[in-house]
Amino acid sequence: MRASVLRNGSMIYRDDVEDLVPAKGQVLVNVLACGVCGGDLHFAEHSAQLVELAGQLRGAPTLTDGLDLSLDVFMGHEFVGEVIAAGPDTDAPAPGSVVTSMPALLTSQGMAPRLYSNTTPGGYAEKMLLSAPLLVPVPNGLDPRLAALTEPMAVGLHAVNKAGIDPGTGAIVIGCGPAGISIIASLKALGAGPIIASDFSPARRRLAMLMGADNVVDPATESVFDAGDRIGTDALVVFEAVGIPKILNEIVRETPMGTRIVVVGGVMEPDVLVPYFGIAKEASFQFVQAYSPAEFTESLRRIADGEVDVEPMITGEVGLEDVGLAFNQLRNPERHCKILVRPGLTTNPTPTL
Amino acid sequence: MRASVLRNGSMIYRDDVEDLVPAKGQVLVNVLACGVCGGDLHFAEHSAQLVELAGQLRGAPTLTDGLDLSLDVFMGHEFVGEVIAAGPDTDAPAPGSVVTSMPALLTSQGMAPRLYSNTTPGGYAEKMLLSAPLLVPVPNGLDPRLAALTEPMAVGLHAVNKAGIDPGTGAIVIGCGPAGISIIASLKALGAGPIIASDFSPARRRLAMLMGADNVVDPATESVFDAGDRIGTDALVVFEAVGIPKILNEIVRETPMGTRIVVVGGVMEPDVLVPYFGIAKEASFQFVQAYSPAEFTESLRRIADGEVDVEPMITGEVGLEDVGLAFNQLRNPERHCKILVRPGLTTNPTPTL
Repeated sequence: MRASVLRNGSMIYRDDVEDLVPAKGQVLVNVLACGVCGGDLHFAEHSAQLVELAGQLRGAPTLTDGLDLSLDVFMGHEFVGEVIAAGPDTDAPAPGSVVTSMPALLTSQGMAPRLYSNTTPGGYAEKMLLSAPLLVPVPNGLDPRLAALTEPMAVGLHAVNKAGIDPGTGAIVIGCGPAGISIIASLKALGAGPIIASDFSPARRRLAMLMGADNVVDPATESVFDAGDRIGTDALVVFEAVGIPKILNEIVRETPMGTRIVVVGGVMEPDVLVPYFGIAKEASFQFVQAYSPAEFTESLRRIADGEVDVEPMITGEVGLEDVGLAFNQLRNPERHCKILVRPGLTTNPTPTL
Repeated sequence: MRASVLRNGSMIYRDDVEDLVPAKGQVLVNVLACGVCGGDLHFAEHSAQLVELAGQLRGAPTLTDGLDLSLDVFMGHEFVGEVIAAGPDTDAPAPGSVVTSMPALLTSQGMAPRLYSNTTPGGYAEKMLLSAPLLVPVPNGLDPRLAALTEPMAVGLHAVNKAGIDPGTGAIVIGCGPAGISIIASLKALGAGPIIASDFSPARRRLAMLMGADNVVDPATESVFDAGDRIGTDALVVFEAVGIPKILNEIVRETPMGTRIVVVGGVMEPDVLVPYFGIAKEASFQFVQAYSPAEFTESLRRIADGEVDVEPMITGEVGLEDVGLAFNQLRNPERHCKILVRPGLTTNPTPTL
């Protein structure tokens, strides 16, 4: 079957991936759409360093255990698929059902996250295997393209839940890429405000306003914290959704006293921090990752019920041959938020980028 | 009058400091005892860098505003004094009363912390001026030497309060210097447990046990997190009370999932952190500084009521001439926890170090 795989830092199209056969408890799906995650871009660029850092980590599951970078790596974790077949003795939705799932496989040891794999194709493939008990049906009629935003929107929902923010209080969102936009939408749904967001890109600032921000700031011309003072927010929660080195230190140096900083961007390299800045302000950091099963399901429900319109986030679609092109294009924030990989697009279309 | 001052990185004894006259709202006290704080040692070594970093900080008061390092710097903020005189029209305790105070002066702008000053002597001086409304009477009969531990013990009380820890749950304390010991004592008073503490120094580990730790670990032979596993604690709160570079990153790399890390040590230099480690564990950092007035008063009450015995923490006493000697001696963790400066000790005694 067809897939795009990570090989030596680049996304390579293959049409010779071994066909998949669902085992007991699994279903085989045709991938209808899979969003390209910024984390995948980052992993493609820094995979050796990330595997090495993950190897230093104790006491937490890592996403790269057992991964061999000298072999092809399957990726793609923001997927929606159509059930083709189920494994033996497996209780599963009927063929033709449209489903999504957290990017995890059930194993005898429990639920294992699956973002990178040498053996199991993800959403950048024609077909994939999913664990039947983890399937979440996409409500009848919801465009699978929109349902593919369930996963990134769950990231923002989880970050807002972990922030412990009250409705009616303000928040600052640094960075209006997919993570920042997802946070803004969840803040809006919560009734938080004013929501003040910052990004260097005019296109991303426009999208932020469309998705629920009350004010946007170009950090090249005004500090988002000055904007907070000007607008008169009592915002004491700041979301870091940029993920570039030094940003965390800059935030803690600039925020008001007592600020809670929710770290979503999550720089993956060794970074610089002056702990004294945190001390002087009694700041706190809450690092967040992923979401719970309940948050994942709630994220889909919000999209399906029309509570959040994710259509404006989708800025391009490509077939499996052009995943590498999508990765390259996504480096330009002025053009793109979310590009969907759609394996069903006929071979070699002009990608709508 | 006599004082020891910071000059070019060293503590210098002077007997020519200008005499002090209390203004309205102030009292003049004879300093009876003043503890030497580890932060003062750090400031003596890195003052230029700290002033520069503080200058970068926005949105929070810094301790070095307006400080001129080319001039002598008065320090000493863990003091107990005896009232000599009050300023005009000032409601103050009678002369002879023993008092302590948070290290702050009331100004027309409010309460200003005062740890370093070119103009106003602190506790490493024969006499000092205090703001009358901030005075806390030392209960009759409490040894002023013990009352001098009010301030450092308030630091631990505040850190434990900010940790949001429940009685009956465990905690890990990294570092058994005065800050770590103060945290251990407050954890014990709260009823938290098991309290697992780590320090390279056998003397400090012994002191930790004496002050309330249930288990101590030499990090040269066993990781404190392994000890946590071995002892079977569910401790998800870790106190960082070391304050050396890289320790924060090491903690977040090693802790279990979801750990709350209370940062008390507070490295003052630019430090290395891998945000990914925090992300992978959904860890949180709570940076803490100082204490509230209520915590300061509660700290004195605990000492005065015998709820915490701070006598074992006092490992040396010096006169004003020997503050520099005390600073040097405190670099040896095997010998010292808290050294008291006692201006009333006769000139040139053999310091009890």
